[in-house]
Amino acid sequence: MDKQMFEALSAETLPAKLGRNAALKKTIGEDPARWSVKEVGDGNLNLVFIVTGDKGAAIVKQALPYVRLVGESWPLPLKRSFFEYHALTRQAVRDPGMVPEIFFFDEAQALIVMEFLTPHVILRRALIDGRQLPKIGRDLGLFAARTLFRGSDLAMATRDKKADLALFADNIELCDITENLVFSDPYFEAALNRHTTPQLDPIVQELRADRDLKVEAQRLKHLFSAKAETLCHGDLHTGSVMVTDDETRVIDPEFAFYGPISFDVGMLLANFWMSYFSQSGHEREAGSRDGMRAYLLDTLETVWETFRAEFANLWRTERKGILYQASLFEDRNDPLGAEQALEIVIDEIWREMLGFAGVEMHRRILGLAHNADFETIVDPDRRAACETKALKLGRHLAVNRHHIHSLKDIRALAERLQKETSA
Amino acid sequence: MDKQMFEALSAETLPAKLGRNAALKKTIGEDPARWSVKEVGDGNLNLVFIVTGDKGAAIVKQALPYVRLVGESWPLPLKRSFFEYHALTRQAVRDPGMVPEIFFFDEAQALIVMEFLTPHVILRRALIDGRQLPKIGRDLGLFAARTLFRGSDLAMATRDKKADLALFADNIELCDITENLVFSDPYFEAALNRHTTPQLDPIVQELRADRDLKVEAQRLKHLFSAKAETLCHGDLHTGSVMVTDDETRVIDPEFAFYGPISFDVGMLLANFWMSYFSQSGHEREAGSRDGMRAYLLDTLETVWETFRAEFANLWRTERKGILYQASLFEDRNDPLGAEQALEIVIDEIWREMLGFAGVEMHRRILGLAHNADFETIVDPDRRAACETKALKLGRHLAVNRHHIHSLKDIRALAERLQKETSA
Repeated sequence: MDKQMFEALSAETLPAKLGRNAALKKTIGEDPARWSVKEVGDGNLNLVFIVTGDKGAAIVKQALPYVRLVGESWPLPLKRSFFEYHALTRQAVRDPGMVPEIFFFDEAQALIVMEFLTPHVILRRALIDGRQLPKIGRDLGLFAARTLFRGSDLAMATRDKKADLALFADNIELCDITENLVFSDPYFEAALNRHTTPQLDPIVQELRADRDLKVEAQRLKHLFSAKAETLCHGDLHTGSVMVTDDETRVIDPEFAFYGPISFDVGMLLANFWMSYFSQSGHEREAGSRDGMRAYLLDTLETVWETFRAEFANLWRTERKGILYQASLFEDRNDPLGAEQALEIVIDEIWREMLGFAGVEMHRRILGLAHNADFETIVDPDRRAACETKALKLGRHLAVNRHHIHSLKDIRALAERLQKETSA
Repeated sequence: MDKQMFEALSAETLPAKLGRNAALKKTIGEDPARWSVKEVGDGNLNLVFIVTGDKGAAIVKQALPYVRLVGESWPLPLKRSFFEYHALTRQAVRDPGMVPEIFFFDEAQALIVMEFLTPHVILRRALIDGRQLPKIGRDLGLFAARTLFRGSDLAMATRDKKADLALFADNIELCDITENLVFSDPYFEAALNRHTTPQLDPIVQELRADRDLKVEAQRLKHLFSAKAETLCHGDLHTGSVMVTDDETRVIDPEFAFYGPISFDVGMLLANFWMSYFSQSGHEREAGSRDGMRAYLLDTLETVWETFRAEFANLWRTERKGILYQASLFEDRNDPLGAEQALEIVIDEIWREMLGFAGVEMHRRILGLAHNADFETIVDPDRRAACETKALKLGRHLAVNRHHIHSLKDIRALAERLQKETSA
């Protein structure tokens, strides 16, 4: 395979083009003539192949030089594959076993050969189906705490952190997508927006006229663009998680960038809240998803509480970076000084996290990239009723994030919104 | 001159080594045999030569591979000259006429040939001498607003901002100096610390036991290391400013890094407050520097008010970056939305600025790198009395920064501290 010239693979060409790839042959079987290939990419950006041979299967993921969802009119550089590869290798060290194993990376072909996860399914799909996965809350809370703490100046040698900051600063185009699609487009009549119409028209108009909300969305964008605290996954929604009852894996970190610790956590929680409000669009009769709804609110509380507890644990045991040094606190018989700082840092993450969750809920309903949670609700009236509740909660969180004290309070609000019969 | 192998210049070797340098010859005169060279570096890090020929004079500044103040035991990479050069060229565009003109840069020799400023003197020296420079408040306020606004995502294409962020992220060793000497060392018994002893021993002990202060200092370090908002000068004290009555120039940006907009402003104001408290160590009789003291407090108010006004002006006229886009506000007939965001952004800069000012006052009295303002007060009792007041104000600002509303209030406090007869 030519190292220089990018060529998009197809199910037909893959065996010939990767037939001499040692890593792939070792994993799935030596004889490419006996490989079968299936293209399964359902994301917005890339080609994803399952390649199966005599010995097993592997995933071949290849970036395309444009946004798959939109087409060749929206070019997108192949180097996102480079950032995905570098994020995966770091996450594998920071929370072992939580990301797919990498077998091979070809930068010029923007191609990663990695572990085929089976019988895992996409978490979002499972939640739409009403499945209650018992481990995800804890696994995702730990993943967030470990990857985000360990990628920051709390834990890393600052020389390594600054090198990674510089490396990922070049992931310009994918950050640009988030900068526009998450923080700005939903709040004005941007060309790529769409929403359930005409049902949502009144609330969309209301949100776009909401000065406090627009200002908060831009403050959050300011945090996104300037708070280079840690290596974020960058796209940590339920579509980036694969699950079985026993296992949780996080995939697709091509949006990885140095950003706020709070960003991944907020995006993740938002997707659980959206799943919560979407359930009534999927239930056979009113109330049949009550258990699922309770499960979702429990799970997002578990994500946050696990994140908080593990972050505190790492703060106490792995705080070896340049920030809040033990030489000023523990080593001077002042461990409570370090605890005081921890409270402040967690409080800041909490306030930011709520804000990121709020705008994520908006952009998935008003912007370009919608969620299957809502999109699979065929009846537009029913869909709009679900979406409206998520939009309202999003606005509440984004604007009031400095005054909200607990997930319990948010739970009460979400349950009240859920019970409202009028949209 | 060998491009590869670094060789430190001396007054004796300079004419031979730079005798064929076209830029230098053009500026000062063609015949190196007629050049005279004087080494005038009084900073902590570098060699600085004034080279004078028939046509004029120029500065040759060369980095050394170690910290000049400490010696070869503290190595420091030559690449700081590269960052100084790149910061100077950017500042020259962002606030024309405020930095020395660059004639030549040699990366391998870590050498910059630049404009010789005459009859300019170092601002710190002028303030120690009791000179009232009429223009500095306004010039420095404008410089801060223009360089800091124009180096951020408020103004730049984010692609260019991210490229500069990555470029300056490699200025690791100079950031490391600030990280340690400003934010941590003053607050514990670090090896490089020194202070006026025994006079300051009690207050030093008090500050190092002050949990709230230590936590704030580390929160500020967290901002320094993670809030990559704009290209900061990085060392903007009164020793980095050269003045005449008519002209103000800012020099020595080798500490340049992507950091908080508030950082340069806070460091600058701190140095005016320190000058204020040092005046009684320089006055011939009690009260003879009253006018100078009033001038210093007026000047720092002018710096801040000018900064604020120019920042607001640029916000309204040059906000073309990705943050707080006009498409959400002005273009939607909501200019007050942009004003609301401006208030919030300025408020945040204010709170951070006070914190940075507070720790800067501490590190200049307790850390490694002291200020001539205090150091030139020979009598240690008198010096300690001045230093104590600055330490107290520093603590007040760092810890109470979220609750302080105006420079007028700080002025009243500074004047009260100044009048205290007891240290």
